Amino acid sequence: MKPTNRRNLLTAAAGGGVAAAVSTIASPAIAQTAPTIQWRITASWPKSLDTLYGAVELLSRRVAEISDNKFKIQVFAAGEIVPGLQALDAVQSGTVECCHTSPFYYYGKDPAFAFGTDIPFGMNVRMRNAWMYHGGGLELMNEFHKSYNVMFIPAGNTNAQMGGWFRKEIKTLDDLKGLKFRIGGIAGLIMSKLGVVPQQIAAGDIYPALERGTIDAAEWVGPYDDEKLGFVRVAPYYYYPGWWEVGPTVGVFVNMQKWQTLPPAYQAMLQVASAEANQWMTSKYDALNPPALKRLVGAGAQLRSFPPEMIEACWKLSNEVLEDISSKNAVFKKIYDHFVAFRNDQYLYTQVSDLSMDSYMVRLRNLRK
Amino acid sequence: MKPTNRRNLLTAAAGGGVAAAVSTIASPAIAQTAPTIQWRITASWPKSLDTLYGAVELLSRRVAEISDNKFKIQVFAAGEIVPGLQALDAVQSGTVECCHTSPFYYYGKDPAFAFGTDIPFGMNVRMRNAWMYHGGGLELMNEFHKSYNVMFIPAGNTNAQMGGWFRKEIKTLDDLKGLKFRIGGIAGLIMSKLGVVPQQIAAGDIYPALERGTIDAAEWVGPYDDEKLGFVRVAPYYYYPGWWEVGPTVGVFVNMQKWQTLPPAYQAMLQVASAEANQWMTSKYDALNPPALKRLVGAGAQLRSFPPEMIEACWKLSNEVLEDISSKNAVFKKIYDHFVAFRNDQYLYTQVSDLSMDSYMVRLRNLRK
Repeated sequence: MKPTNRRNLLTAAAGGGVAAAVSTIASPAIAQTAPTIQWRITASWPKSLDTLYGAVELLSRRVAEISDNKFKIQVFAAGEIVPGLQALDAVQSGTVECCHTSPFYYYGKDPAFAFGTDIPFGMNVRMRNAWMYHGGGLELMNEFHKSYNVMFIPAGNTNAQMGGWFRKEIKTLDDLKGLKFRIGGIAGLIMSKLGVVPQQIAAGDIYPALERGTIDAAEWVGPYDDEKLGFVRVAPYYYYPGWWEVGPTVGVFVNMQKWQTLPPAYQAMLQVASAEANQWMTSKYDALNPPALKRLVGAGAQLRSFPPEMIEACWKLSNEVLEDISSKNAVFKKIYDHFVAFRNDQYLYTQVSDLSMDSYMVRLRNLRK
Repeated sequence: MKPTNRRNLLTAAAGGGVAAAVSTIASPAIAQTAPTIQWRITASWPKSLDTLYGAVELLSRRVAEISDNKFKIQVFAAGEIVPGLQALDAVQSGTVECCHTSPFYYYGKDPAFAFGTDIPFGMNVRMRNAWMYHGGGLELMNEFHKSYNVMFIPAGNTNAQMGGWFRKEIKTLDDLKGLKFRIGGIAGLIMSKLGVVPQQIAAGDIYPALERGTIDAAEWVGPYDDEKLGFVRVAPYYYYPGWWEVGPTVGVFVNMQKWQTLPPAYQAMLQVASAEANQWMTSKYDALNPPALKRLVGAGAQLRSFPPEMIEACWKLSNEVLEDISSKNAVFKKIYDHFVAFRNDQYLYTQVSDLSMDSYMVRLRNLRK
């Protein structure tokens, strides 16, 4: 149908009383003074993780700036209002209006929360953004989040993570048997099928556990964050890639009722500031990680790639585990199938695009002088 | 020095008349009603390039939303106010307040404009963002842009481009001799050293020139944009990678005087909306390109990688050309040296990070069923 025809049809249908109503709707709303609104955002991060926490501060500062300080979102670190892993609960119940967290942390409530962050062998940062913003991924997840009385807005990414710090080298699958590895969630489950004994240990306790040999290995984030915890001194083998966190998104969960009471301009402010924070965190980590890795290598880190046979085994086990969850959870299955179809196209295309070019660049740099 | 000491020092130094001045500065400004401001942005794109042009529309819409329609930026397509390639001139002179363009287009004014977009064998989207936002790249470029009475804000990226459409296969360096290739700028100069005859042809004229054989090949952008121009029907060999545009940024040039008259809240609005547009365009292209490539292959496109010997030759020639420009242009040299040092670290790190993981994913997908 041509636009002109469509307009005629609408005009024709709108005769009589309907026309009057349309006219009322079309007249501009009387300009209201922008209200002063004070929100609180609870972060799942301590202030020391200045990239993760820094994104929340940026978000808060930006919203204040563009609203001329009329919309203020006060930032609280993990533990100041609620513990880091209870951020979502505080938003659900309305204790705070919103939080900045990793959706994966709420995997125990429903495995479908994982898609907000990433799944093992998931998608890289760019692919995830494409899926969420333009591929229908965010809508799909927020349909699910509704039942928890929240909506999710992406606002950060740690980028592809490292595989972690090991006290000894991993040369074969046999080296994984009995290995006490600080790793959680689905990845821990997958690795347990290879004989790994997954450990749950809070950040501050990892270093002494590695030092004493209570655990054999630990994964955290990437060079910039890992450096702060000093693992290089007690577990020098630094493995890659962290296949369980390929492009882990973090972001804002907003209480649905609180969201609905926000003026549209303020809703837009939260969205645009979150989008900026998303890009900011990725580019901040991208800027900080390479020099941090160089410092770590200077301090004795031994870079190692996981053995290919291990990656392949984990890939197969990962697919089995994810398909098993799918078979028992219809929401998970719906998002998983959508995610996998999108991922397939992405990895097909990157072979003639960024991956091809980046691979050339790595080789060409060696030809230079 | 501890923060407390520093504060004491400042207090001590601020005695007497200075203290009074500080007190005046510290008191909050009287709240002003946000002014209604109407700007114009001229794009270098036709409306048909809905990803490039779409980013400008998003930027304009977002600024209107978050300002409650008090800050309006009206969008004009290429040719409506000035031709696409004169967008910067219109901003410099104050004909319009700002434009959305590719800085590279102004290479003829000064080669240093190239860094705003990308240089051959430059950096991918993420690396460029890291360099610009967190590596000092944007400050460095804007020092240079000052002399043109403008400042630059990144607001989009086409992502790694394809190498273009060829009527015949390129199997050796000899196949490039005498090849009439629609390609411009530094890349054209580099390829001319391999015998290519670079051609400058406007978008609308490329198809008939390829069809008649007036030219042998043409590069445009990537699958989604290329598909619209129908090249697959007349030059089926679709080459990659487009080493001359690895992560080409586009963005907003703002007239310096106009920028300085903007209230701080409106300056922040333009920055945050540009940041969102930057991420939006990358993720939009990332979502659109893979299905477009599949359609093109279905329509007969023959995917080909440029011969490695050609890529290597172009890499060497590119370094020679860029170093030659550096030797003659101090501003170019300053930015180039900074860019190259940053790029080296980026490609070092991606080998244990995204590039490693993405390479695994490409291989692992083939193991799946």
